[in-house]
Amino acid sequence: MYLAGVDLGGSYIKAGIVDSGGKILAKGQVATMADQGATAVILRIKALLERLLWEQGLTFADLQGAGVGIPGSVDTDSGLVKLAPNLGWRDYPARAELVKALKVPVIVDNDAHVATLGEKWQGAGRGFASLLMVTIGTGIGSGLIINNEIQRGHFGFGAELGHYKIAHEKRRCHCGGRGCLETVASATAILRTFREGLACGCSSLLKDSPALEARQVVEAAAQGDVLARRVLERAVRHLALALANISLTIGPELIIIGGGLAQAGELILEPLRKHLQAYLGVWQVKPLPLVAAQLGNDAGVIGAAYLALSENCNQDM
Amino acid sequence: MYLAGVDLGGSYIKAGIVDSGGKILAKGQVATMADQGATAVILRIKALLERLLWEQGLTFADLQGAGVGIPGSVDTDSGLVKLAPNLGWRDYPARAELVKALKVPVIVDNDAHVATLGEKWQGAGRGFASLLMVTIGTGIGSGLIINNEIQRGHFGFGAELGHYKIAHEKRRCHCGGRGCLETVASATAILRTFREGLACGCSSLLKDSPALEARQVVEAAAQGDVLARRVLERAVRHLALALANISLTIGPELIIIGGGLAQAGELILEPLRKHLQAYLGVWQVKPLPLVAAQLGNDAGVIGAAYLALSENCNQDM
Repeated sequence: MYLAGVDLGGSYIKAGIVDSGGKILAKGQVATMADQGATAVILRIKALLERLLWEQGLTFADLQGAGVGIPGSVDTDSGLVKLAPNLGWRDYPARAELVKALKVPVIVDNDAHVATLGEKWQGAGRGFASLLMVTIGTGIGSGLIINNEIQRGHFGFGAELGHYKIAHEKRRCHCGGRGCLETVASATAILRTFREGLACGCSSLLKDSPALEARQVVEAAAQGDVLARRVLERAVRHLALALANISLTIGPELIIIGGGLAQAGELILEPLRKHLQAYLGVWQVKPLPLVAAQLGNDAGVIGAAYLALSENCNQDM
Repeated sequence: MYLAGVDLGGSYIKAGIVDSGGKILAKGQVATMADQGATAVILRIKALLERLLWEQGLTFADLQGAGVGIPGSVDTDSGLVKLAPNLGWRDYPARAELVKALKVPVIVDNDAHVATLGEKWQGAGRGFASLLMVTIGTGIGSGLIINNEIQRGHFGFGAELGHYKIAHEKRRCHCGGRGCLETVASATAILRTFREGLACGCSSLLKDSPALEARQVVEAAAQGDVLARRVLERAVRHLALALANISLTIGPELIIIGGGLAQAGELILEPLRKHLQAYLGVWQVKPLPLVAAQLGNDAGVIGAAYLALSENCNQDM
């Protein structure tokens, strides 16, 4: 039997046919075109999977199930998407609609959870029973696994490290709160702080770059650019503080950093480790590895397939 | 069968004989006299239990096991106390020595864990599968239960909310770190900050009180004392921030506040709830109850008995 893994993003739908050993047999992507409405998105997912199955000489009947990662608040039990701003979905019965279209068992979950499960199954988290994965990109997503189970928590949305509050930071977050970690340590926030520095007249290697990206700030910092270093130091210090405090409370065995910013590799990981260790101090009685995600863009597809494999998705169809 | 629960403190050994329904049949306490050495402490525990058993017409043979809560870093698996400053113990094989003396199965754990288990079994936490208990006294202790299991975490010491770091706080903690929550929000810290205010010439109702206690500061704040209110507000805000951030990551179903300071009841709980809700903002999609501990000084004894009941303590004797 095979599994379908779908990583539904605001811009692209990525999908793969995965075997029970976690190997991607076929993968592909199409534009999401969320503005055409939810039903059109569901049909595009179906068409993409149909094509991938056909390439492998398979049909939907060969699927044990399909997992779908969705960027938003997802209630996995009911299959309802409470809110997915990038898709324009609110209280949308995603699982029921997918089951109707695909005619296979479906399970839906938050995209950060799905990526975390992917890294645990086939990536940096293999063999660890408890881990925290943090995805740093436009925002900050996270997934927490304890005793091999993804934690959805009392509120149902799992770990929301992006909205971890920094006491004395006051930048307003889209969630309505102030000082959320993603307002100081996401790629978007790093870029914003850097631009504010430029606007204040700070000099920088990147002063005349037209379309700046957070990764360039990281690279400029490595080249000794003073403004870039200051901006990055601040983001990394706050991120490390949050990771230290979570580690002091839950104590995961491993921390995985993923997302666009993690592609800067050791330029980010090394200072992050240094600050994390400093904050942990005597409490770090044994090493707490902090590593980069390994699956890159495939984490969502593989994790979604794992979700379909591991969870009981034999609901009524 | 009966259970023995022992709450070993720096000043007193409290113990009880508990039935499998969680009822204390007999309880008592003796001075710890830690300065007489570990062996003397073990013998005092034995003598206290012997007396309590005798009062009930029982002997050690009637015990299914004994649980012991210890103020320090305890490795429950090996039964080793790594460090218990108030007892002067370091790398002390507590379980092995207790088994030798009592000749019953013994399980040892950190005192905050034991109190948390007590509240879950017979106190404020009954019926909740996941909860965080925070004990505010001389220091800040905590215990985290997820899916009905106390979490000991990667480092083995469980939740150490007392050493949760506040970003911009710089007070040195006995652990060597700076800005640990217990340096700003424990009873000791509240008293210290209040005394610093008095020393700076702030006026207060309590200006001429000879032997101040943190509880008096809480009461003065309720009476409108400006310095007391300012000091308490700061402590409560930091504590609420830590609780909000833990809730955004783990999402316990319930938060229990225990320890000496919790005896101030709603004077502490009400502002704590208010700040917690403000920090959680839109993320609080359903109520997160924050309540006072119910068992008071008995939490340790009852929790230790629960430990003996629930954990596999049938090790070699």
